[in-house]
Amino acid sequence: MSNASRLQELNQRLEEIKQQQLSLDLTRGKPATAQLDLCNGLDGALQGDYRCADGTDSRNYGGGLGIPEAREFAAEYLDAKVSQVMVGGNSSLQLMYQYVVHAYLNGVSGPESAWVNDASNGERIKFLCPAPGYDRHFSVCESLGIEMIPVTMDENGPDMDQVESLLKSDPLIKGIWCVPKYANPNGIVYSDEVVARFARLGKIAGANFRIMWDNAYAEHHLADNPPELANLLALSEAEGTAANAIIIGSTSKITFAGAGISFIASAEENIKNFVAYLGISTIGPDKVNQLRHMRFIKNMDGLRELMQSHRNILQPKFELVLKHLDEGLGDKTVNGKAIGTWTRPQGGYFILFDTQPGLATRVIELCADAGVKLTPAGSTWPYKKDPANTNIRLAPSFPSLEEIDAAMQVFVLCVEIATLEQAA
Amino acid sequence: MSNASRLQELNQRLEEIKQQQLSLDLTRGKPATAQLDLCNGLDGALQGDYRCADGTDSRNYGGGLGIPEAREFAAEYLDAKVSQVMVGGNSSLQLMYQYVVHAYLNGVSGPESAWVNDASNGERIKFLCPAPGYDRHFSVCESLGIEMIPVTMDENGPDMDQVESLLKSDPLIKGIWCVPKYANPNGIVYSDEVVARFARLGKIAGANFRIMWDNAYAEHHLADNPPELANLLALSEAEGTAANAIIIGSTSKITFAGAGISFIASAEENIKNFVAYLGISTIGPDKVNQLRHMRFIKNMDGLRELMQSHRNILQPKFELVLKHLDEGLGDKTVNGKAIGTWTRPQGGYFILFDTQPGLATRVIELCADAGVKLTPAGSTWPYKKDPANTNIRLAPSFPSLEEIDAAMQVFVLCVEIATLEQAA
Repeated sequence: MSNASRLQELNQRLEEIKQQQLSLDLTRGKPATAQLDLCNGLDGALQGDYRCADGTDSRNYGGGLGIPEAREFAAEYLDAKVSQVMVGGNSSLQLMYQYVVHAYLNGVSGPESAWVNDASNGERIKFLCPAPGYDRHFSVCESLGIEMIPVTMDENGPDMDQVESLLKSDPLIKGIWCVPKYANPNGIVYSDEVVARFARLGKIAGANFRIMWDNAYAEHHLADNPPELANLLALSEAEGTAANAIIIGSTSKITFAGAGISFIASAEENIKNFVAYLGISTIGPDKVNQLRHMRFIKNMDGLRELMQSHRNILQPKFELVLKHLDEGLGDKTVNGKAIGTWTRPQGGYFILFDTQPGLATRVIELCADAGVKLTPAGSTWPYKKDPANTNIRLAPSFPSLEEIDAAMQVFVLCVEIATLEQAA
Repeated sequence: MSNASRLQELNQRLEEIKQQQLSLDLTRGKPATAQLDLCNGLDGALQGDYRCADGTDSRNYGGGLGIPEAREFAAEYLDAKVSQVMVGGNSSLQLMYQYVVHAYLNGVSGPESAWVNDASNGERIKFLCPAPGYDRHFSVCESLGIEMIPVTMDENGPDMDQVESLLKSDPLIKGIWCVPKYANPNGIVYSDEVVARFARLGKIAGANFRIMWDNAYAEHHLADNPPELANLLALSEAEGTAANAIIIGSTSKITFAGAGISFIASAEENIKNFVAYLGISTIGPDKVNQLRHMRFIKNMDGLRELMQSHRNILQPKFELVLKHLDEGLGDKTVNGKAIGTWTRPQGGYFILFDTQPGLATRVIELCADAGVKLTPAGSTWPYKKDPANTNIRLAPSFPSLEEIDAAMQVFVLCVEIATLEQAA
């Protein structure tokens, strides 16, 4: 069949689908209701006993570092020492924003180290942004006027030659955003070699540089024998650069997305300075919710059991997306080139689809017209500019299998239509 | 008896007390354990039902304005319209800090309005600080390099002639901190006339000026027929200055001090801009805790009943402090002048004691040596500088009646000793 007649046939099929007036959504990495139900026992978990292990009353003021049992748990979860860990409130994004503002305005180690000093000549400080990446990291920089420099990624992580060379040439670069495991959106796990090179970046970039290591999906596996991520904080300690590493985690996709607890780990001195800053901007984290979490999750065994239950719900959804991609697009080419490529993540919340160059916007538009909402084109890049206009982030966690099935039929159809349109 | 022999007698009594090795604390406005116990029903209040009134799942992402039932409640509590209200997390201090940073860096209504613009010539922007006031308000300014100008207060509130005249003469003044009811630490309630003049300040100070109206003790009465505070937001609306008023509240001293919910109200446009800013710095407030609070408190009747129970615990403590002051110092003079003066608050968390000029530091030092910890001298003033060195803030909420009894014996003794020392 010619490209033209194939396009006509597909457009007709799309028109038929539009009659169904679908309203489907693959945009956001939100847990499904069935996942949230796994932790309904959180409310009531305290059974009237609000005392922490050390006798602290979780209901009253104080305790900016978090409660002892939550710090111990976080240390195990993040692979850090208890003294290197602080436990925060319901948003790790907030912890990251607060850390960046703290570093920007007040300085990572006192006023002299404030990033804003380097920006005082009208020059702007900069962050490296391995891309595609997490849009809300990029929004933090954008809102503070921090310039973002995209960095290329491959299956092992960011291009470290590029990272090191940029750092050597530009002292205004003060940080880098990373999702090192099951990265949002491309699902990759940074290789041991890449992490080892990260641990040495502080030697190039200096004492005020920060690696924002957002390990949001540390235990969020979708496969057996999951890959291991090297321990940046431990490697950095060995290199004498622990203060450059800011390790972040949360239970947002373990317990409740909007009502979990968050973790941050770094050199003890960093945490001390950060908590002192937070002492000015808040009365402290919600310790009752920390205690509730510890009573409910109990320990890392409890957490891993819970994550297995999450996997049982999520894995079929990811498999269904991949089935549609494999069967609908796997062997198709247009003008001798594959219609698209996609990731097969071993964990996390996303599948990244790449169209042929220049087509992501068009595919997303076609899908929207047919009632299937996708993350806007460019979202995964600094300033929302995907240079090749190919990235489409698919988030199958929230919709049901039936909804994914219907949405992916539309998606596969729209990808082929957009590709044929361009080839015409 | 001569001053000298009286001093000798008192010092001997103090030495005897030191033998007891007391360890007492009147420093912080923390609720007592019995007060916290009033709300132990919070944990488990959801009984497995995490759905909000409008069907929203409180466990998942989204909803930066807070859940509908909490907004309705907050509107009633703050005397505002629902559309003017946002409900936040466990710290109203954090909301205030976030609002100030938002105004400073991003601008109350877009980049052009950012306070930092006015600070770009090396000049610093300024806040008016009615003093004595709340130390953590002042810390927010200090950490951002915002210059603080103390403003005189009397029993009706800040000296509004002074406030208006300062605003007329200095466009770098961008805000003013207020605790308008049962003020921390002097317990006063701003008069209707003062509030009415506050509602007109925006006309002098312009569109980017903000009144940070921290109504932390709105329902925290210690007496029958409590005074009413005029409604700043409604008065401001009538004057066309609603955007200048930022009204704050929380349940920190209603439910749990460290795990309550917080409220902010202002002109709808302000709230919209603020929530957009928060959308960059956090995933949103803990909606589960908001829902839990609404299920537990239910409505304003429930809240008032709860506040009556708090009063039952607090009032005897305040009365005991006053009894010691009245009986121990009430009729005493040194060199013809009263040994001290003190407030008799109708609500709130503090009694403010004033020594004769220059003695607060010495009294606090004497008490500390005898095992009674008081808020450091100067704490209630910008930059911790009490110009007359007379203010001592007494916070009797947390200790038991027995502890207050012991602590106040020491306090009364030390006040007299310090006064006699100076008179000698």
